[in-house]
Amino acid sequence: MTDLDIRPATRDDVPAIVAMLADDPLGAQRESPADLAPYLAAFDRITADPCQLLLIATKNGRPAGTLQLTIISGLSRKGTTRALIEAVRVHADLRGEGLGTVLIEDAIGRARELGARIVQLTSDASRTDAHRFYERLGFTSSHLGFKLELR
Amino acid sequence: MTDLDIRPATRDDVPAIVAMLADDPLGAQRESPADLAPYLAAFDRITADPCQLLLIATKNGRPAGTLQLTIISGLSRKGTTRALIEAVRVHADLRGEGLGTVLIEDAIGRARELGARIVQLTSDASRTDAHRFYERLGFTSSHLGFKLELR
Repeated sequence: MTDLDIRPATRDDVPAIVAMLADDPLGAQRESPADLAPYLAAFDRITADPCQLLLIATKNGRPAGTLQLTIISGLSRKGTTRALIEAVRVHADLRGEGLGTVLIEDAIGRARELGARIVQLTSDASRTDAHRFYERLGFTSSHLGFKLELR
Repeated sequence: MTDLDIRPATRDDVPAIVAMLADDPLGAQRESPADLAPYLAAFDRITADPCQLLLIATKNGRPAGTLQLTIISGLSRKGTTRALIEAVRVHADLRGEGLGTVLIEDAIGRARELGARIVQLTSDASRTDAHRFYERLGFTSSHLGFKLELR
């Protein structure tokens, strides 16, 4: 893993990140990598927000993984700051090599440096391998995750 | 419900919000309303973040409920903006009157106006009444929620 680099994404990384988001059983139904315009607009919103960190991992200069970290201040738990992890992907060619663990541990380290004392994420109920992965990393599956799509 | 007002919280509302957070089976173990300093510091962080909205509901001028809304830009789902709801409470004296529904529907409306197309939240696995409440409001319990406390 010594040739692995994890860093904030630039606008030039957007096509590679979108390709990784789409290369996934759930993502394939949701993404449209042929039209990058909405993704580039979203990238600009993300980078304008100081509480957002979109990360890309590269290995030997090629896209290897991605995730998004959001730092959320809050009153509850004595004013505890949380970090939310979203949109985690490891490149299809590199799965099973422990890269996901490195990526999440890197995110946890960044969350801690940014003042977070809880790291939280939700995982689709169908992703049973992912659930075991997060439990091995020390996460507790203590909550149900609810979503409402707005029309 | 015509005497109900839902508005962004001010610093003067912090004691009332903390009291509502603490008046709850889980919150009672986590909060310390006797020392407001960490809550006031967290309030200042929340209000400094343009993507955060801490709401308080009042009824006849008295605290009736609270929740926190976070607007999260993202690349996934074609650059969909999400809204995260956290720290929902209805005052103990006012439960069972439909106030929770009004509060969540107000938050959904604000999320939509702020550009969100998904509203999401997690609820502790032990809060089975809350799960039914969110399902009645149209939310789908599609995910597992994982948390990791950092030491």
